[in-house]
Amino acid sequence: MSEAATKTKPERRHGAQSYDIAALRRELGDVPVIDEQRVVRLRSRDFFWYSPILNEKLHGLSADILAVARDEADVLTVARACARHRVPITPRGGGTGNYGQAVPLEGGVLLDLTALAAIEWWKPGVLRVGAGAKMVDIDTELRPKGWELRMHPSTKRSATIGGFVAGGSGGVGSITYGGLREPGNLLAARIVTMEEEPRLLDLRGKEAQAVNHAYGTTGIITALEMPLAPAFPWIDLVIAFEDFFEAVAFGRELTLTDGIVKKLATPIQWPLPTYFGPLRSFCPDGKHILICMIAEPWLPTFKELLRGRGDITYEAPMDEEPGKTPLYEYTWNHTTLHALKHDRKVTYLQCLFPSDRLIDSVREMHAMFGDEVLYHLEFQHFGGHVTCSALPVVRYTTPQRLNEIIALHEENGVFIANPHVYTLEDGSRHKKADSDQLGFKHQVDPMGLLNPGKMRSFIPRANGA
Amino acid sequence: MSEAATKTKPERRHGAQSYDIAALRRELGDVPVIDEQRVVRLRSRDFFWYSPILNEKLHGLSADILAVARDEADVLTVARACARHRVPITPRGGGTGNYGQAVPLEGGVLLDLTALAAIEWWKPGVLRVGAGAKMVDIDTELRPKGWELRMHPSTKRSATIGGFVAGGSGGVGSITYGGLREPGNLLAARIVTMEEEPRLLDLRGKEAQAVNHAYGTTGIITALEMPLAPAFPWIDLVIAFEDFFEAVAFGRELTLTDGIVKKLATPIQWPLPTYFGPLRSFCPDGKHILICMIAEPWLPTFKELLRGRGDITYEAPMDEEPGKTPLYEYTWNHTTLHALKHDRKVTYLQCLFPSDRLIDSVREMHAMFGDEVLYHLEFQHFGGHVTCSALPVVRYTTPQRLNEIIALHEENGVFIANPHVYTLEDGSRHKKADSDQLGFKHQVDPMGLLNPGKMRSFIPRANGA
Repeated sequence: MSEAATKTKPERRHGAQSYDIAALRRELGDVPVIDEQRVVRLRSRDFFWYSPILNEKLHGLSADILAVARDEADVLTVARACARHRVPITPRGGGTGNYGQAVPLEGGVLLDLTALAAIEWWKPGVLRVGAGAKMVDIDTELRPKGWELRMHPSTKRSATIGGFVAGGSGGVGSITYGGLREPGNLLAARIVTMEEEPRLLDLRGKEAQAVNHAYGTTGIITALEMPLAPAFPWIDLVIAFEDFFEAVAFGRELTLTDGIVKKLATPIQWPLPTYFGPLRSFCPDGKHILICMIAEPWLPTFKELLRGRGDITYEAPMDEEPGKTPLYEYTWNHTTLHALKHDRKVTYLQCLFPSDRLIDSVREMHAMFGDEVLYHLEFQHFGGHVTCSALPVVRYTTPQRLNEIIALHEENGVFIANPHVYTLEDGSRHKKADSDQLGFKHQVDPMGLLNPGKMRSFIPRANGA
Repeated sequence: MSEAATKTKPERRHGAQSYDIAALRRELGDVPVIDEQRVVRLRSRDFFWYSPILNEKLHGLSADILAVARDEADVLTVARACARHRVPITPRGGGTGNYGQAVPLEGGVLLDLTALAAIEWWKPGVLRVGAGAKMVDIDTELRPKGWELRMHPSTKRSATIGGFVAGGSGGVGSITYGGLREPGNLLAARIVTMEEEPRLLDLRGKEAQAVNHAYGTTGIITALEMPLAPAFPWIDLVIAFEDFFEAVAFGRELTLTDGIVKKLATPIQWPLPTYFGPLRSFCPDGKHILICMIAEPWLPTFKELLRGRGDITYEAPMDEEPGKTPLYEYTWNHTTLHALKHDRKVTYLQCLFPSDRLIDSVREMHAMFGDEVLYHLEFQHFGGHVTCSALPVVRYTTPQRLNEIIALHEENGVFIANPHVYTLEDGSRHKKADSDQLGFKHQVDPMGLLNPGKMRSFIPRANGA
């Protein structure tokens, strides 16, 4: 861990100097290409700067050119040309990741997939959609038909479904359906392989897991089949509590109440609400808050469960239209964003608390770190059990102290997915690449041209890269 | 427990001899009444005969007349007349209960509510319907609109929604939503009070819990507001396993997999399948089976989860139309019915296994009883945790041995709701009436005329009964 967090900038072959971009472009035909460096550099970034360590390592890395695919045929054209000229491709959706998922480590082509946004078909419970569709647009189209995505990140209004599957892990809705990697939460994927004669592969079921959270290194995702949840009118709520652990205890009880349909339960420690701009006025001084999304038919049941334990300070139908701020944009990693707007000295961690001693574990960690680590917890199902993940806001001092904080969590049974590393392996639970994904990459990207360095344990068997 | 199971037939006032039925009938106006004793006796029964002990106690008990309400106005008429003449009423739906819920302990009027079957309104997630609607009819009407009841008993094709709320506790669907008494699973109820001037009361939220599992003793339920689940095409499956505990282990894993939408997971011990008539040919000799209902979109995910552990011997879309037998009619208490068809010497118990040591606990009980107690388990959520209830088939010898079996389960951490008692209190978890329900009864049935003796701890404060 400390090794990963302190090693130096990745070695790169300095982009354009290494690749014959001019020859490549001749093979791209009429695929729109942008080479204005200011634009390419800007689009080669994501939200890695939440981490001061990643900010140092990834700052300034950029593709050489940006190709904007209009359709799947364009993706095939770009993949073919890049494979032939041994130029890396980094696929990009909304660019909302935090681990440099959209940052080309070795230059090459940044491939914008946001135009692949069409809904191919849907039926009750299932949707097939282009990977570039924004998640908010999917829900806007499906909700009048009675369905919506099961889960989405707090960046739903700018993130694409392809980016979420490639780089996300769960979010709003995981309180009911668990994480994105749990069986049934991704049904199928279509990918373009990175070969001189690129293939279109339809992956179903377990096979589709090869692209789940692989940061786009195991094929270029062009379409996805996702499960749906019934669409309800969601009510956004803020509830103020005297005691943080009472908010956690109530959140746990709520999550365990299967009869109440809910999408979000986020206890947030004071003083985090001081960073909350427009929401600040609904957060009483010194009080800890719980942010919830409850399906309207069960709002009375929710209030009966709450009775007397906390004060509802905000209650309104969830509204994610432009100009509005849905409450989920104060939760998950948006909390960090609000904090960073006020204080650039903070960063964050990614925790998973143990289900069987959840509240005790949160108490221990809080006692250990005080204001140095401010918790907001995300109630979720995980493997069928109720627990919390968390993206606590950390007052940053040195990389050494950050690693110490990580180690202290892990020694005390709180799992950490380190968000201060940029490779798949270092951020993963087992600190190594998923063996299925590693094996699959040999089939679909034998030369290792999909953002080389991102899956760092991959070594091409064939030469040529 | 042993006291309850061995005490004698309830004292009764011998029906017609005690009541002025003639005077009562004059006040019933044009409410249809049946007084043919053969019919009245037949309708005064339910499925209490699953228990040899209840069979002895309740056999022969009957109402004096049967009133068939055409609408809520008729219910008010009957309640008014009965209150004035101090004649008991026993409300009746489909008569599918097992605890004598529909058996008048002290004669009087049996009130048939099955004509109160209209859907008043529905919206996404919520239905308001007359208490007498058959559950299968509700689903038949709602499913084309995309919704269905969250849960139903295995008697869905004959049971009414009012009877289920008054006398049920959960069933097919509880694997997702928990028990009927969990918050959010009953939204509101309308009742007619049992007074000389009967009132119509609208009970919402916690207030509505006053009628939940009160056997119709806390007001005559005329309408209910129930939560709905999205309707999916359900696939009925039988999977054969070499080892019963492997079936249980897989069932548990399935239940913990939140991404797979499911409605039923029932491991059934060999030789219970020998009783299964038409299904017998799909149950290989000596194999234990698991019956499942899986939503069609997640069938591939289900099969991937199963891979190699059991053999699918039956797979077909669930069909509950007349003439068909949906697989849920082999589960829950229907299993007992199939066994009783072959062997009138068996009876059953109602167990709830501990969530935290589920499989070990089932192993222990199986080791203790062998073939004397044959288990089929019903996976369900209970308080947010995955566990099993069970209605094991018991080879019946004596009341003493039955009580011993009950005691041995309880001593080993398996909760038993005794199905060999007919009062609310004896069958309840805490062996006493819910204090809210007891208090509420004073408001809505002050003379104690709703099936007197059923809530045996109720003592009217006013005289007159």
